[in-house]
Amino acid sequence: MREVGIGIAGFGTVGGGVLSILENHAREIEARLGARIVVRRVAVRDVAKERAVALHPGLVTPRLSDLLDDREVEVVVELIGGTTEAFDLVAGALRRGKHVVTANKALIAARGDELFRLAAEKGVDVYYEGAVCGGIPIIRTLREALASDRIQALHGIVNGTTNFILTAMSENGEPLAQALAEAQRLGYAEADPTLDVSGGDAAQKLCILAQLAFGARLRPEDVLTEGIMQLEPADFAWGRGFGYALKLLAVACRVERAEGEVPGPDLIEARVHPAFIPQASLLAGVRGAMNAVQLRSDALGPSMLFGQGAGALPTGSAVVADIIDLSRNIVASSPGRVPLPPSTPRVQLRSHDEIRCGYYLRFSVKDVPGVLARIANTLADRRISIAAVEQRDQADGGGAVPLVIVTHRAREADMRGAIAAIDRFDTTVAPSRLIRIEEL
Amino acid sequence: MREVGIGIAGFGTVGGGVLSILENHAREIEARLGARIVVRRVAVRDVAKERAVALHPGLVTPRLSDLLDDREVEVVVELIGGTTEAFDLVAGALRRGKHVVTANKALIAARGDELFRLAAEKGVDVYYEGAVCGGIPIIRTLREALASDRIQALHGIVNGTTNFILTAMSENGEPLAQALAEAQRLGYAEADPTLDVSGGDAAQKLCILAQLAFGARLRPEDVLTEGIMQLEPADFAWGRGFGYALKLLAVACRVERAEGEVPGPDLIEARVHPAFIPQASLLAGVRGAMNAVQLRSDALGPSMLFGQGAGALPTGSAVVADIIDLSRNIVASSPGRVPLPPSTPRVQLRSHDEIRCGYYLRFSVKDVPGVLARIANTLADRRISIAAVEQRDQADGGGAVPLVIVTHRAREADMRGAIAAIDRFDTTVAPSRLIRIEEL
Repeated sequence: MREVGIGIAGFGTVGGGVLSILENHAREIEARLGARIVVRRVAVRDVAKERAVALHPGLVTPRLSDLLDDREVEVVVELIGGTTEAFDLVAGALRRGKHVVTANKALIAARGDELFRLAAEKGVDVYYEGAVCGGIPIIRTLREALASDRIQALHGIVNGTTNFILTAMSENGEPLAQALAEAQRLGYAEADPTLDVSGGDAAQKLCILAQLAFGARLRPEDVLTEGIMQLEPADFAWGRGFGYALKLLAVACRVERAEGEVPGPDLIEARVHPAFIPQASLLAGVRGAMNAVQLRSDALGPSMLFGQGAGALPTGSAVVADIIDLSRNIVASSPGRVPLPPSTPRVQLRSHDEIRCGYYLRFSVKDVPGVLARIANTLADRRISIAAVEQRDQADGGGAVPLVIVTHRAREADMRGAIAAIDRFDTTVAPSRLIRIEEL
Repeated sequence: MREVGIGIAGFGTVGGGVLSILENHAREIEARLGARIVVRRVAVRDVAKERAVALHPGLVTPRLSDLLDDREVEVVVELIGGTTEAFDLVAGALRRGKHVVTANKALIAARGDELFRLAAEKGVDVYYEGAVCGGIPIIRTLREALASDRIQALHGIVNGTTNFILTAMSENGEPLAQALAEAQRLGYAEADPTLDVSGGDAAQKLCILAQLAFGARLRPEDVLTEGIMQLEPADFAWGRGFGYALKLLAVACRVERAEGEVPGPDLIEARVHPAFIPQASLLAGVRGAMNAVQLRSDALGPSMLFGQGAGALPTGSAVVADIIDLSRNIVASSPGRVPLPPSTPRVQLRSHDEIRCGYYLRFSVKDVPGVLARIANTLADRRISIAAVEQRDQADGGGAVPLVIVTHRAREADMRGAIAAIDRFDTTVAPSRLIRIEEL
């Protein structure tokens, strides 16, 4: 039977998952593939370390270069993370005509283009299903199942940590700090949760998805990104009253140019931020650390994929599915069967100022005559149209009352200008809160 | 540029969708495929008929055999439906070494094995993503993304007609006849809706999915199948009180043998029936004519795919995705890249008598002393354990009162015996209603 030799770099959580799936399901994989996947080398930082999944000592090496030098390694599986050492390893593998499977979202988001170009030159493949949403086959679906379709919008819950926190805040009325501590205790959040709670992790994933869905080329820093640290239990309660659930969404969508915008190629918006979405929507039902990606496309209409976004076995199974797919290409001598995304962008990113959304605004104001009129005038001056207003009598300790306004779609720069003006009023007692609304 | 010649048999709704996608997205498809898909022949029953999507007259033929005889047709796209003429066409194509794409669930459910065997013999491919759940890439996901995983359970809402009807009954309290008439008026149900409302269509789809998920070989008549015609608005209301939504589910799952069951190979249950599911589950949020399939597997854990199950463009896009995938195999000379399901079954079907479920039971009984005790004794005699009871005072016109019992998991044959006995009581005034419960 034909053997496909692989070399694994990095042997943490996902590496252990990959090896245990390869071992436990070897017979099924052989039957479905008609070939045997053989682990030739495993490169680890600390050879002496005790591991949950046992490694044959003859396989283990502390040198990444051993994977490159081993002629029997046809596929390099990169699981070391980061963008420097991992880049050198992947680029080195491609240069030597080896195929690559990676679960490294930071690497693909930051330097995917260079790697894809190199792979195309060398006639080899790069697979990266595990880099986005763990076990959800979103990369495969975008590359293959939707190959004949035109995607209009993508809305994703792509970060399990923040979805766990927001679910706890919503269902138990917990403040953010408490929900975050709970997530850390259960292992859903890291000791330093910055990358997750800032929206940065979601922005990296969005860049990868937007390239496949729209032919966009974005860097994470291009994406309008807002995290969840500003959210308060009160916002969940107010939103519920308007029929909304609150989620951290990654959004990329085609948009029409508004009057006055500079003409040019097709335009998309790309943003990561807390968003109110209809309670009856499927995305609102995605609870805890689960992930989901909703698509809207011309032929298929609305569709959604749901599953676990992280973890040894979910991400491991995505990596193994990639190894199997690559092995099929190797066995059939058909590398490059599904082309990697082109490096010339096919769409342009709308500037943040021009983004359009509905908004939920929560003001803390002094309970004196004329306050609502002044705020309403400030919004009207910037052509921001009000859909609903709610003011509650009960003043909090400082004599302030909450005033909540839901607006129709408005221009981001106009909204920022209005909020800045309102926050300077002497009747405004705390910075105003702004949460975007997505009707999906 | 390499051309891949296709011949389309049948040009109804889906055929029109396929051609319009191929035409409208020709440039994207060429770019992604590196080859051009060219329609060489279209076989239609009535050549003279006016069509929404225009056909070049030179392409059209009334003879299916023209597709087989045309050496430039490399892929036959079968969209004529049925299991006789379609079987002859597909088998004829395979025998001549042509690849096949079909959206014909009845054909694959009834005679897929013969066709898969023939395809393997001839070294050609059969693709059938469009046969199940229209645009949802469930076949591709089961064959490829989950290639390294072991599936434990599959729960699907795979029939849009019945889901539309049940959504209307649930949300508007409509009786079934009214919801069905509305579905017919809107084109979601056919003039003769039997195949949909009986569960027969869902059973065909379940056979196809269970083969991919478990290596089962089932005929639709092997599946325990109950339709929706017995459901009444009262059941929705009672279920809601217990926290349940009511859906027509297609279920296939691995089960452990109970004590006393004959030993043998791995065991699965396969059934299609109305089921109460938790209101907070994602499947409960699948509304109207939409479809969804939820999987539970060892590595991935829970996952779900959601989308439109029917229609010219959703199903057309699945067919075109298959054509593109097949074309990649043709261009790379790698037919049989993903093997078709094996014809030797790897699991055995549990007999209907041995199926285990929770049950919701609704009795109509005379309001006389001792009725509840008699029913409870009858259940207890058959080791059926009660989880909840609710009786309401208000008698209906005939002096009967409703009595609802929710049971723990019980054996199907025991439950049928109990119901038959209870229906013979002189205190029972109408046939008892039974709805299975799936906790998902």
